[in-house]
Amino acid sequence: MTTSADIDDREEGLAFQPKFDGSGLVTCVATDAATGDVLMVAHMNDEALRKTIATGEAWYFSRSRNALWRKGESSGQTQRVVEMRIDCDQDAIWIRVEQAGAACHTGRRTCFYRKVEAGAGGSRLSLVDADRLFDPAKIYRK
Amino acid sequence: MTTSADIDDREEGLAFQPKFDGSGLVTCVATDAATGDVLMVAHMNDEALRKTIATGEAWYFSRSRNALWRKGESSGQTQRVVEMRIDCDQDAIWIRVEQAGAACHTGRRTCFYRKVEAGAGGSRLSLVDADRLFDPAKIYRK
Repeated sequence: MTTSADIDDREEGLAFQPKFDGSGLVTCVATDAATGDVLMVAHMNDEALRKTIATGEAWYFSRSRNALWRKGESSGQTQRVVEMRIDCDQDAIWIRVEQAGAACHTGRRTCFYRKVEAGAGGSRLSLVDADRLFDPAKIYRK
Repeated sequence: MTTSADIDDREEGLAFQPKFDGSGLVTCVATDAATGDVLMVAHMNDEALRKTIATGEAWYFSRSRNALWRKGESSGQTQRVVEMRIDCDQDAIWIRVEQAGAACHTGRRTCFYRKVEAGAGGSRLSLVDADRLFDPAKIYRK
């Protein structure tokens, strides 16, 4: 049973007690420490979180590959963690990072390279910050 | 069946086709348009997303209350959307907002008011940007 004392403790206390979801994950937002841009939104399991804290480099858990993953292990595009924060209910992590090259597997600096805008026939996307810093076909060799 | 042509289209195309999870939600990160700080991580269903785009104010879907929710409707702490972006696989939204007052229900400007740091006996939290801009007991009257 979750009591209001538990909630107070999780929200106001200084004990690190991440609240993993049913799949054992928390959401992690990585922003560029220099510009404040959101680079990516991904997930961490307990091990990814521990390794990130211990090494100062970002580790994630890939839901599609069902595997722990050191950011940049195949691409070289690593993330050095400048600061880690946790939110009020401790189910989301924010890391400010120094990104080597591009965060996105498509080769862009950020995964958020498209803007959403209202249009007459519904919402449309337009490219923004969409230059590729690397060619994914060359980086992710099968 | 999801083909690689579908993936290419979702990642490289300019059609807005948000990928909702099994609960009908996408993750939304709101950052402060002025400072780049992450204010909160929340969720949007299709209706919240449409209303946000149509009105220019942030709407979310509360998983705990199982209800659509206009940010600030009880607290007055609204968010005006300056820009909306979507990520590569279209399952996460980033909004840059002008935040009226505080984003967090605890009264802080951001939900991320605690820093995570490695310590000898495990990770610990410390307060940062943790001043309260309002008293939650007064704002959220029962």
